[in-house]
Amino acid sequence: MADQPTLAQVAAEAGVSPATASRVLTGSVRVSTSTRRQVHDAMSRLGYVRHRAPRGTSARRSDQLVAAVICEHTQRMFSEPFYARLMSAADEVFTSYGVPFVVMTATPATSTIAAPPLVTGSFDGVLLAGARERHPLAVTLAASGIAVRSAGRPPDGIDLPFVDMDNVDGARQAAEHLLLTNRRAITVIAGPPTLPGARDRLDGFLRTLHAAGMNDVPVAYGDFTHASGAHAMQWLLQRSPHLDAVFAASDPMAAGAMQALRRAGRRVPDDVAVVGFDDAPLARHTSPTLTTVRQPVEELGVLAARMLLMSIASEDDDVPHGNPILPTELVVRESS
Amino acid sequence: MADQPTLAQVAAEAGVSPATASRVLTGSVRVSTSTRRQVHDAMSRLGYVRHRAPRGTSARRSDQLVAAVICEHTQRMFSEPFYARLMSAADEVFTSYGVPFVVMTATPATSTIAAPPLVTGSFDGVLLAGARERHPLAVTLAASGIAVRSAGRPPDGIDLPFVDMDNVDGARQAAEHLLLTNRRAITVIAGPPTLPGARDRLDGFLRTLHAAGMNDVPVAYGDFTHASGAHAMQWLLQRSPHLDAVFAASDPMAAGAMQALRRAGRRVPDDVAVVGFDDAPLARHTSPTLTTVRQPVEELGVLAARMLLMSIASEDDDVPHGNPILPTELVVRESS
Repeated sequence: MADQPTLAQVAAEAGVSPATASRVLTGSVRVSTSTRRQVHDAMSRLGYVRHRAPRGTSARRSDQLVAAVICEHTQRMFSEPFYARLMSAADEVFTSYGVPFVVMTATPATSTIAAPPLVTGSFDGVLLAGARERHPLAVTLAASGIAVRSAGRPPDGIDLPFVDMDNVDGARQAAEHLLLTNRRAITVIAGPPTLPGARDRLDGFLRTLHAAGMNDVPVAYGDFTHASGAHAMQWLLQRSPHLDAVFAASDPMAAGAMQALRRAGRRVPDDVAVVGFDDAPLARHTSPTLTTVRQPVEELGVLAARMLLMSIASEDDDVPHGNPILPTELVVRESS
Repeated sequence: MADQPTLAQVAAEAGVSPATASRVLTGSVRVSTSTRRQVHDAMSRLGYVRHRAPRGTSARRSDQLVAAVICEHTQRMFSEPFYARLMSAADEVFTSYGVPFVVMTATPATSTIAAPPLVTGSFDGVLLAGARERHPLAVTLAASGIAVRSAGRPPDGIDLPFVDMDNVDGARQAAEHLLLTNRRAITVIAGPPTLPGARDRLDGFLRTLHAAGMNDVPVAYGDFTHASGAHAMQWLLQRSPHLDAVFAASDPMAAGAMQALRRAGRRVPDDVAVVGFDDAPLARHTSPTLTTVRQPVEELGVLAARMLLMSIASEDDDVPHGNPILPTELVVRESS
C-alpha cells in the first residue's frame, strides 16, 4: 500500500481544493452533489482508499459503512429464518454505534459482480455468512485485507476470523439424548456437506454414536429446507424401514421429516423420535412440538458485529485474538 | 495482482469473443442473459476482478453500485413477504446487468445513520420502498440529486419518480365483488394511513361503497401483520356485531381476521365474507382459501429496477417519462 495516492492528489485530479475533497470524505453536507461525484470519480480513478480513523478518535465516525455478505440467493436469504435472526441482531449493534449497514447476497456465480465494491474501498468491513467450500467471494475477501468477521466458521483453507457456535457439541447432545432414550435404529438428515457448520453437526453426531458402538448410521442430505427434509425422510424410510429415530440438522428439515413420517403412518415420538437443530420459532409450533438443539443466533450476530467494529476501529492488533465459540443446548420437547 | 487473468482469458473460458465479454462487463443490453451468465461464470472460475473504467468511457461503468432502501426495521423487512418478492425480482434485474446491489433498511430514527453513504457518492442509484409520510430519508434522497426510483408511490410532497400498482382500482374490484354478492354490512381493516398505497386501497374501497349509497362503513386500522388483522377484527365485531363482510388491505391481516372470526364462532364465507389484498402464497393455504386482490409485486420490482438502471445510464433525459401504474386483479377463492 506504499503507492496509495494522497488526498491532495485526489483533490488535484478532481479539480477541487483539498479542503473540499476532505469535506466530501467526511460526509459534509456543504458540498454539491456534482462536486461530490467529481471527487468520488477521482478517488475511483486513482484507487484512493479511505484511511481508517486515527487512534484516539471516537469510534463514532460519519463515513463508515459496513456490509453483511450472505453467500446465498436473495430469495433464500429471505426464506431461511436463520438470516433474519442474524441480520436483525447485527443491525441492532451497528445502529447502536451509528454505523450504516447494508446487506448483500452473492452466489458463486454472482461473486464477480459483488466483489468490486467490497474490495475497492467503498466498505470499511464485512460480516460474512453462509460461505461454502471454495466460495470465490470468501476467497477474494480473505485476500483483500479488508476487515472481515465470519458469522460461522469459514470453509477450510479460507483464513478469516470468525465467531461460531458449538455445532459439534450440540449434535453430541442430540445423539446422547437419543441413546439415553433407548433409540437403536438412528438415522440422520444432514445439511450441505460443503457448509462447515453442517459438517460439524454430522461429525459430532456420528462420532458420539460410533463411540457407543453404533456404526453404519444411514445419512441422507438436505439443503436445510422443509421440502428437502421431507424428501430425505422418505429416502431413509425406504432404506431403513425399521428406523426409530432421526436427527435433522435444521428445524425446517425436521418439520419436513415429521410431515413425511405422518404420511407414512409413523407416529412421532412413539414410533420415531425426531430431533432438530436451531430452536427456531417453528419448533414450538409443530405438532408434536420439536425437540431441538438451541443455537444462539442472536448472540452470534451481536458478537460478530461487535468484533467486526473493533477490527475496523483499531489500527494495530488490539482486537481480542481468537475465534469465540458459543455454546449450544438441547431443548427437549414432545417429538422425542 | 500480477496474476490477474485477462479479459481475453475470460472470453476464451466462456467460449465467447473478447468483444462480447467486454460488452457483458460494461453492462450493454445487447447481450443475452445466457451469454451474460456464461461470462460471469467464467469470471468466477478464473477469479477475474474487473478494473475500473478509464476516463472518458460511457456512463455505464463497471464500478456501479445500487442500493435498495427499505423504510422499515430489518426484522420487518424479513417478516413481510412483500419485500422478499420485491427484492428477489429486483436482484434478478441487477444481476443480469452485472450491477452489484445491496439492501439497506432505515426507520425515521435511523435515517441520519443511513443517509451519508447514500448521498455522498458511494451509490449510483437507489430503489426506494416502504416510505411513509415525512420519512426523513425519502426527503433527503429527493433533494440529493442521486438517481432514485420508488417502488410504490412516494408520500405526498416528496417528488420522486416511481412505479406503482393500481391500489385504488384493486380495492374498487374488491368492493364491487362484495356488493354483487349481496353483502350489506361491509367493514374494512385498512393499512397504516401514512403509507400512500394503504391510503389508496382505503379510498378506492370507500369511494365505491359510497357510490352505491353505503356510508358509515366501519374502518379499523392495522399494520399489515397477522396479529394486527386479528386485533382489528375483534374490534370490528364489537362495534358492528352484525357485519357480513370484511376487506383487509393485506393477506396476512385477512388471515388474522379469519382466525378472529373463527374464534368468535363466525363461519367464513357463510356468515362473513373475507377479501384480502396481495395474493401472497399464503392466500392459497388458508382454510378456506382467500379471495384477494393480486398485486404484481415481481413485475413492480423488475420495472422499478430497470427504470432505475436507465436513469443511471443516461447522460441526458432519455429515460421514459411518467410513472407507470401496473394493473391489479381480483382473484375469487373460497372466502367470499
